[in-house]
Amino acid sequence: MFTKELLPELRLRWKKIQALMKAEKTDVCIFCDSVNLYYTAGRVFSGYVYLPVEGEPLFFVKRPSVFSEGNIIYIRKPEDIPAKIAELGMTAPTVIGLESDTLSYNEYVRMAALFPEAKQINSNLLIRRARAVKTHYEIEKMKESGRKHAAVYAHVESVFKEGMTDDELSIELEYISRRLGNLGLYRIFGTSMEIFMGSVLAGPNADNPSPYDFSMGGEGMDASLPVGANGTLLRPGMSLMIDMGGNFNGYQTDMTRVFSIRQLTNQLALDAHQLSIDIQEEVKRMARPGVAVKDLYEMAMEKVKEHNMEHYFMGHRQKAGFIGHGVGIEINELPVISARSKDVLEEGMTFALEPKFVIPGVGAVGIENTFLVTADGLEALTVFDEEIKELI
Amino acid sequence: MFTKELLPELRLRWKKIQALMKAEKTDVCIFCDSVNLYYTAGRVFSGYVYLPVEGEPLFFVKRPSVFSEGNIIYIRKPEDIPAKIAELGMTAPTVIGLESDTLSYNEYVRMAALFPEAKQINSNLLIRRARAVKTHYEIEKMKESGRKHAAVYAHVESVFKEGMTDDELSIELEYISRRLGNLGLYRIFGTSMEIFMGSVLAGPNADNPSPYDFSMGGEGMDASLPVGANGTLLRPGMSLMIDMGGNFNGYQTDMTRVFSIRQLTNQLALDAHQLSIDIQEEVKRMARPGVAVKDLYEMAMEKVKEHNMEHYFMGHRQKAGFIGHGVGIEINELPVISARSKDVLEEGMTFALEPKFVIPGVGAVGIENTFLVTADGLEALTVFDEEIKELI
Repeated sequence: MFTKELLPELRLRWKKIQALMKAEKTDVCIFCDSVNLYYTAGRVFSGYVYLPVEGEPLFFVKRPSVFSEGNIIYIRKPEDIPAKIAELGMTAPTVIGLESDTLSYNEYVRMAALFPEAKQINSNLLIRRARAVKTHYEIEKMKESGRKHAAVYAHVESVFKEGMTDDELSIELEYISRRLGNLGLYRIFGTSMEIFMGSVLAGPNADNPSPYDFSMGGEGMDASLPVGANGTLLRPGMSLMIDMGGNFNGYQTDMTRVFSIRQLTNQLALDAHQLSIDIQEEVKRMARPGVAVKDLYEMAMEKVKEHNMEHYFMGHRQKAGFIGHGVGIEINELPVISARSKDVLEEGMTFALEPKFVIPGVGAVGIENTFLVTADGLEALTVFDEEIKELI
Repeated sequence: MFTKELLPELRLRWKKIQALMKAEKTDVCIFCDSVNLYYTAGRVFSGYVYLPVEGEPLFFVKRPSVFSEGNIIYIRKPEDIPAKIAELGMTAPTVIGLESDTLSYNEYVRMAALFPEAKQINSNLLIRRARAVKTHYEIEKMKESGRKHAAVYAHVESVFKEGMTDDELSIELEYISRRLGNLGLYRIFGTSMEIFMGSVLAGPNADNPSPYDFSMGGEGMDASLPVGANGTLLRPGMSLMIDMGGNFNGYQTDMTRVFSIRQLTNQLALDAHQLSIDIQEEVKRMARPGVAVKDLYEMAMEKVKEHNMEHYFMGHRQKAGFIGHGVGIEINELPVISARSKDVLEEGMTFALEPKFVIPGVGAVGIENTFLVTADGLEALTVFDEEIKELI
């Protein structure tokens, strides 16, 4: 082990994965994605976690070259693994889990060739299901991130200055966030999204669609990263949506608040913001272990239709197909709160709920909070005033 | 086209790729990695660039939904591509280039199934060779990034304060860099490296190995991102290596300078730093189009051995196997300056040279600059005093 203190915690995680492996009749999973190494070994390293369906994993390490504990086995290349397994008297797997969603094609082919007789299954699906339900230790980490995340938002009023642009405000918040301990890195599953430390959307820029699968868009500062702030001058009457990342310890929270430059008088925007809060309150009433997340999505859509707000909900010129998503080591974990999701809430799940609207000419409104599913319902991990706050 | 003004520039890039495709008897390349979309289309979008070996590409776009030019074809999913190709009277490819180094296994299998009769080749290899030789336009972008990158380093002396830690200094430099226009994102090829905005290594932390394939390590602030600054208090006599990213416009430069807290008196460290500069000067004398990069590596190793410095070169407890690397849209492009590289310098290539040393107890020393290969030799894109500067 890399960190003996983490052993009881890691055992809980291995057991969760192993229960899913058993159900999928999988003998061994091999993990090497940074995120999955961090989850199963407690730290990022260069190498592989070899997790059998029973017992404890082996850690095959390429770098760094500084560990000496028993179940850490140094290798030069993945092709060294089968011989080491045989030396230990372990049998080769007949069904093996490999990360087919995150390994590149060339890496996958190389890994699959280690045990050419084994049938392969997608271990990303499996570990993402395990990771969706957080342990007590992980929940404490997320609570810490949530507290610090909220502390960053408490600075928005003091950093705002007349004549500022959206990117200037973003840079001030990034700086405060880093000083409060944000590690900076925004970990995202899959290849369909890239972002720096978060998004600040001012006024009409909120209606610029992005190529990425985020809930909101924005033109961005450059064609190489077309998302978020685009240099918009902050002018009276605009809404300002702040959706910055909160990764203070390896576990992220997700949180959005809306500010206005002077007074926001547009009634449609004010109504939409209130509707976002109302949807959140209804989700709080409904959500508990056993509830299907698609029911939360359906309720939200019904409320939106009741108020004739479909046109603006989850984007205007371009729409997102979800109103929330699991969050943890990555910003987009399970469950996905969408119409077609089959996910059901479980105690220990953590998800961000973000019913948002884009009002043409005004900007984006709505809130986002990260919630923990407890036996009794939801507990908010990101606590901060939810009304639109005026910046003057 | 997304941006008509870029058309002459993009035509130069397509022709370079097509020349390599011809040599590899490849009919069509399909690109969808953000970096390769940016290179071939001038912007990131969600979709595919379909580049035939002759003529101009088609742009199959999923998002954003705001373009209307002729060769932009909206699709819902990649499986829509073959029918669109047939409708246009184009023949299906017999040899197709797919991004087997950057597509996930599952994405690759899906793409390969579009043209099941076609033989597949690795298009990452091919486009990385094209991208290694920059156009005039790209060189101007890199020159701009280099100027701004150097401007950030000019602030190190003014932000340093007695009693500061390495991460505090890093945060101040990140803030200045962002205010000078750094987009923040650090684009890296492959899955073996992650980092936030760069690395600040103070004193003994330079000898902490990281799991990543960077030239230097560092423990990092958290087990989820174990690289770079680790909270070391900056104390007199320590060396402080600043290796921050410089992505001011989609094109990166790479640059390292060393500072010392008060006076650095360790003779070994001073000699090693001078040796780094001497190696750079010798590289400048040798390097021109046609020179094999492995000859540069060999020369450096010989000089290091002459001075009995092998023990400290490119790391101490853990060593890197290269002394430089191409740089552009990604921080690790071709050529790789290593013993086994077959790359030969060409006019228009840009690479970072980073002969560095770790001196136990003192820290890291050495310099790094980004160079352009011209017909006459090297031109530095990152110009800033190369001596160790005292912080007081």
